[in-house]
Order: sequence, then C-alpha cells, then structure tokens
Amino acid sequence: MSDLDRVLSRIDADFDTSLARLFDLVRIKSISTDPAFKSDCRQAADWLANELTAIGIPASVRDTNGHPMVVGHRKEDGKAGPHVLFYGHYDVQPVDPLDLWERDPFDPAVVTRPDGSKMIVARGSADDKGQLMTFVEAARAWIAETGGLPVSVSVLLEGEEESGSPSLHPFLTANKDELACDLALVCDTGMWDRQTPGITTMLRGLVGEEITITAADKDLHSGMYGGAARNPLHVLADILAGLHDETGKVTLPGFYDGVIEMPEDVRALWDKLGFDHEAFLGGVDLKYPAGEQDRTALEQIWTRPTCEINGVWGGYNGAGFKTVIASQAHAKISFRLVGDQDPEKVRAAFRAYVEAKLPADCTVTFHKHGGSPALRLPFDSLALAKGRKALSDEWGREAALIGCGGSIPIVGDFKTMLGMDSLLIGFGLDDDRVHSPNEKYEMTSYHKGIRSWARVLYELAKG
Amino acid sequence: MSDLDRVLSRIDADFDTSLARLFDLVRIKSISTDPAFKSDCRQAADWLANELTAIGIPASVRDTNGHPMVVGHRKEDGKAGPHVLFYGHYDVQPVDPLDLWERDPFDPAVVTRPDGSKMIVARGSADDKGQLMTFVEAARAWIAETGGLPVSVSVLLEGEEESGSPSLHPFLTANKDELACDLALVCDTGMWDRQTPGITTMLRGLVGEEITITAADKDLHSGMYGGAARNPLHVLADILAGLHDETGKVTLPGFYDGVIEMPEDVRALWDKLGFDHEAFLGGVDLKYPAGEQDRTALEQIWTRPTCEINGVWGGYNGAGFKTVIASQAHAKISFRLVGDQDPEKVRAAFRAYVEAKLPADCTVTFHKHGGSPALRLPFDSLALAKGRKALSDEWGREAALIGCGGSIPIVGDFKTMLGMDSLLIGFGLDDDRVHSPNEKYEMTSYHKGIRSWARVLYELAKG
Repeated sequence: MSDLDRVLSRIDADFDTSLARLFDLVRIKSISTDPAFKSDCRQAADWLANELTAIGIPASVRDTNGHPMVVGHRKEDGKAGPHVLFYGHYDVQPVDPLDLWERDPFDPAVVTRPDGSKMIVARGSADDKGQLMTFVEAARAWIAETGGLPVSVSVLLEGEEESGSPSLHPFLTANKDELACDLALVCDTGMWDRQTPGITTMLRGLVGEEITITAADKDLHSGMYGGAARNPLHVLADILAGLHDETGKVTLPGFYDGVIEMPEDVRALWDKLGFDHEAFLGGVDLKYPAGEQDRTALEQIWTRPTCEINGVWGGYNGAGFKTVIASQAHAKISFRLVGDQDPEKVRAAFRAYVEAKLPADCTVTFHKHGGSPALRLPFDSLALAKGRKALSDEWGREAALIGCGGSIPIVGDFKTMLGMDSLLIGFGLDDDRVHSPNEKYEMTSYHKGIRSWARVLYELAKG
Repeated sequence: MSDLDRVLSRIDADFDTSLARLFDLVRIKSISTDPAFKSDCRQAADWLANELTAIGIPASVRDTNGHPMVVGHRKEDGKAGPHVLFYGHYDVQPVDPLDLWERDPFDPAVVTRPDGSKMIVARGSADDKGQLMTFVEAARAWIAETGGLPVSVSVLLEGEEESGSPSLHPFLTANKDELACDLALVCDTGMWDRQTPGITTMLRGLVGEEITITAADKDLHSGMYGGAARNPLHVLADILAGLHDETGKVTLPGFYDGVIEMPEDVRALWDKLGFDHEAFLGGVDLKYPAGEQDRTALEQIWTRPTCEINGVWGGYNGAGFKTVIASQAHAKISFRLVGDQDPEKVRAAFRAYVEAKLPADCTVTFHKHGGSPALRLPFDSLALAKGRKALSDEWGREAALIGCGGSIPIVGDFKTMLGMDSLLIGFGLDDDRVHSPNEKYEMTSYHKGIRSWARVLYELAKG
C-alpha cells in the first residue's frame, strides 16, 4: 500500500473527527466586520494556531492592527517538490437577516436531503472554514500516517477577508521573506458542478475610472438656455455610447493588445463542460449574451475584456420634473482585463478617448479607482498539471479549468508582492449560499476535498 | 392738448404719489408659499381691491381654496376697441437668505446710483408688484383725467403665482364667462435692455418624459456577469446619444414638423438688437452655442425646438467604486417646442424611437411629465402692432419682439381656457434680482412703464 493510499484510508477512517473539528471551528462567531465579535475572531485564530501546532505545523497568532493572522511552517528538508504557502481565511460574514435562517447559524448540523445526500449547514461551513479545513485535515492525515508532509508547507490564515483585508498588505510587506514560497495554494473557490472538480486559472483584472464632465459653471434653466448651452449629460451620453461598436467590441485604440485567445484544447474542454447559457442568463431574467457578438457568454465572462458603466448621475433625479441643464455629469466606468492587458495603458487610452470627444466648452476630471492586471496560471504550468491529475484521480472526472470574471485580491498580492503563482482549488458549489442565510457545504465537498488536497500534496512532491 | 398728452402729464405730476402707493403695497409681506403669511396675502388682495375700486374699476376679493383673487371690471360702453383683461400677481417670493439683503426687504427705498439713476429696492418691487402697479397707475390717470378708460378693462390679480398657481385653473373654469375678453394684457416680463422696450411674442412649449430601462431583474456583479449581461446604462447612453445628429439637430422623425421660420423682417429686427452672444454664454462660463450649428444662440433659445436631458441616474454613485451592473437606468428628458409642433406627436415619436432602439432583453417604461404647445402672438396681429407703436412712442426706440425660451403658464391658460391671445409687455431688466436678495425695479421702468400702459390703452382704443 502506497503512502498516498494509507493517507486516504486514514482520512476516511477519521472523517467523523474531521467533521467534529470543523464544527468546533464553525461554532466560533468570527464575524470580522462587526467589532462586537473581536474576541471571537481572536478565539478562532487561537484555535487554528493550536490545531496546526498539534498536528505538526508549528504556528502562532500574529497581531496586526486588525484581526490577527495565523502563520505556521513545516519545513520538510531534503524533499524535492516546491515549498507551498496555503492560504485561507477564518473570518465569516455577518448572519443577518437572522430570521431567514432555518437554525442557529453558529450551531452547525449535518442535514440529510431526501435523496440521501448530506450537507453541513452553518455560517462559514463553506466560506471559508469548511474549505480551509480540507487542507488542514489533509495535512494532519499525512503527518499522522507518514510522519511528515510530501512537501514543505507554510500556512497563512487571515481574519479580515470578509472586511476588505486592511491588514494584509502591511503584513505581507513586513513578512515578505518569511512568506514568499514557490507556489501558493488557495482554497476559496468552487467546483465546476457537483460532480466536476475545478481549478480557477484565470482571474480578470480591473481598471476603475470616474469622470466628471463640467460645462456651464452652474445649473441652468433649460427654458433660458436650452439649445444654446452645452448640456454635459449629452456629452456624457455620447462618450459612453461610443465606447462600444455595433458588434459589442470596445472601441478604445489598442484595447485588445495583450488579450490572449484560448488554446484549442482549453476551448474543447469548455465545450465538454456543457455550460448552460440559458440558465446562466435566465437566472437573472435575461436571454441574449450582450457582449461581443462572436463569443459565448462563458467566453465573455472568463476570457474577454469588458467595459462596463457602473454608475451614471447628473441633473435632477427626484420626483416630478425640473427643467434644468446640469453643470456637471458623472460616470463610474470599469474595465475587466484579461491576458496581458496593461491596466495603465487601458486607463490612458480611455482618458485620451474622453479628452478627444470633449467639446471645446467642457472640461473633464478623472478619478482613478484602482487598477490590476489579469492573473492566470499558464496552461502549461507544472503545478496546474499536477493539480489536474490529483483532482481527476479523486473525482473520476477531468478537472475543469475555470475562469473567474471577478478578481481575488490575494492572488494578485501573492503575485506582485511575493512573486508566487497561485493554484486555486476549492470545493464550493454555486448553491452554497455563502454570504446568505442557510450557508451550507456539501459533505462530499468536505470529505473529497480533504482527499483531494492529500493527492495534490502527493503530486506536487513528485517534482 | 390731446387726451393722451393730458394723461401723460398727470402721470408725471402725480408720480410721487404713484411711488408712495407702490411702497404701501410692497410693505405687505405677501409671501404666498409660506402659510405664516396667509393673512398678509389677503391684506394685499384687500388693498388692491380697494385701490381699484377707488380709482373707478369696481373690484372685489374672491375666495379660492388658496390665496384670494382680485377681480375688477370697468365697462366702457360705446367705445370701439377690444375689451382687455389685465393680469398680474400680488404675491412675492420668500426673502431668505435674509442676511444677504442690504436692507429690510419689506421696507422699500429709492436708492440713487453714482450715475444718478435710481432704483426701487424691495421684495416685489419688480416681480410683480411694481409691474402690476404700472398698469393700475396708468388706469388711474386715464380715469382721473378723462373720466374713463379708452377701452373696457377687466383686471385679474392672482396671489399664488410664486407657488404654482393651484387655484388658477379652477377659478378660470368657474368664471370663464366673466373673465373671457378680447385680449389679455400681461405685465410680468422684461425689456430688451435698459433703453429698449420689449414685447414677448413667442413662448416655447414643453414636453417632459421620464424613462426607466430594465435589463436583468436584479443588480449584478460585473465580475460574474460583465460582458454577457446587458447593461441598461449602456442602452440608455446609446438612446440618449442618438437623439441628436452631428450637426445638433434632433433626429426624431417628424420632429421639425410645424416649426416656423422667422419672417425676414423679424430676423432683421433681431440683428439690429445686437444680442451679445458672448456675454450671454460667457455669463455661465461657456463660449460656443451648442445647439443646431446653423443657428445663433438667440435663434436657438427663442425660435428653435430642443431636446434636453434634464437628469440621468442608475447604478452606483456613492464614494469609492462598486462593480455593479445595474438592473435599471433612468433619464428625464424634455423637449422645448416652437411654432405649431404638436406635443403629443413629439412624445409619440420619442417613445417610438426608444422602443426601436431597445435590445431584445430590455423593457422600458415611460412616465409623462406634462405637454404644452408653443404660444405666439402672430407677427401680423393688430394688438401687437398697437403695442409696438405705443412702446416706440414712449421709449423713442422700436420695441424688440422677444422670444422666451421658457413658458409662462398663464398665457397658455388664457389661450386654451379663455380663447384669448396675450400681449406681454413688461419693464423688468435682467439684473432686477427677482427671486433673489436685493430685488430692485428701475425708477424709469416704473415711471415710463405707467406712461407706456397709458399709451397702449390709447392705441388699442383706435380700433
């Protein structure tokens, strides 16, 4: 019997105690955004540091200006594979509205469905306590069964992920040498579906811009001035309307520089996934993909850059009517980036476009709202290949390579601050109700999640 | 010495007492919008009814659900000219901010400027107590000097003009037969400039529309859905941007039906006025007329129809950034109408245009905000010719035929409810600060205004 097989057997045999430990962690009300739960957050950090230390990954609670970090290390001298940094977060979302919960959110329970499938119901059961514990329990089984881990492991557990991670940047900066490893393992994402594991390999980047267009130096009466005075709301409409052409493409010169077409094999994989476009858009009462005409909705949200107006305002918006010509018009606009698109080049192209469209009588001010490039794990990366093999072995299905339309800030920070790629493996499902009442985690996600990490560590060690 | 000459001499001789009477009226704090001044409003109505009755126009105070009307009649049997209805309003705007007034707003005073010119400073000195008293004092002089008026005169003085005239419609409806005359005389407008009298002959109409465009049934995360989900703010921008072509013309089919080109002689008159386009736009920090490219700013605001966005909102407009795709986008849009443009045809054309632009996944709801046609006194009307002669005689300058970009609701009501055209003659100046602290009325406006009305009545009687 191989080491891996023995570890997997132990995981199965010990699963009840793994579940009990998750329940213990879930019972701690570590709501990071609410100061009333400050000591609960510390309690969760203490619990995790003790747990890690107990299983053989010496860990400590590290103070920050906010909630503490938990950091642990286990160096496996002489082993070949990469030194990995595992990341998760122990804080959870608030639970209101409490009356929509079917039971106490901090009193976890296993609920069996009519079809026999089971789920763990509690705040944090999925996001992220259940997920991070899949890794902790996998590590426990390896050390308990074999006396060590297949590769050197560091652990970083955060307590402010649900409240904007204000302490993360300073902590990474201050502890760069300690935390920089060869690869990050992040367990905070989802599977493709109930049967199909997933690795999130693409995260879109983001450029945010706010513009204010000013025409007259005061609001004008449209009777007195209408027709003669420049109306900044018209100017804004022209600018915004011109950002896309009639095929849905963004018109900014050079915008698509750095956009990467998916390799044929990835496309083929996606076709096999059978993404239900109708259900995706139908779920929000839409029917037709609205973006670039020659792309599927899945391509649009995973692999294509966008330009979206996120807010527009100006003039009168109260009840009734006011015949005003506003002095100013405002918009918030964001660009989702993919591949190697350069955020600052996109920003510059946008600003140049706006300036060029501006009539002589108007001025514009720009306000920058963040900019980060897209992130991706190269399709030919070794870590990705190992992760795919581990997951496929465990789930009996090829792992889906998932894109993510949004961004996960920690992944960008690991890349830019610590120089590490991240392997994003998680076992959440779309219906887990994270951030909502009656959050749950599939029992299979927890059990096979633990087994999956055991296999990932094993594959990574192969070198 | 003709009757007119004797009347004018009497006006000059009695001017001090005319001024004293205006001061008496101005001292009454008839702020219609503030319930605290309800009895002051009635006091002003009583004062005017007594005054009219005393000079020989028997008048009474007539109750409404709001502030009372003053109605008086003097029938001149056997005289040829039209029976005219004079309209003015005795209510005034609030006086706040009080600390910006250089003196008590209800303690009128004559202030002499360094150049010797005089002005009457008080709330209501111009709008509209000073203006309405020019007519009352002219009538007084006619009756006192000749025993009668040149034509039959009815008087309607309102007390709610500054608060939306809620009682006017019901009052006109209930007293239609009593108030319907041959011609309305309205004294609530301005001169062209300090030296040049004006008759306002064109008032633009107005169509107001509010639209709400709905795409998804909830706000979406732009990371999750951006690129695939229809963004109603983009749809709105496209719709609004398409309302004008690149020459500034409104694109709605049939929009310009009923628009009337000005006769050459009126254009010539305007050219002579020497409108200072630079000062007009420069006053609000603009430089270039923004509307139809082949029209001057004066044409644009007086004689050309417009389409203006008066308000736009949707998505996130708070501090910072939110990567949201809004479910709904909103706009308020108005059209200024001229000539014989049909408000309901314009509304229908707008709605058809929006519906046609709407992508399959969006719905739109329309909300109507009023619709009224443009009003104009035909350039060849007899009353206009008489008014022009009277003013030119008094001021030694040809009267300007003025357009008004906005609307004066009473003029529309007189036309639609009582079947009367209105001759709009007033002596206000742009710098009178009506509605603002330190409102003033030129002493010459008051004095020559009285003389002007004496002449208008004289000319109208010529038949």
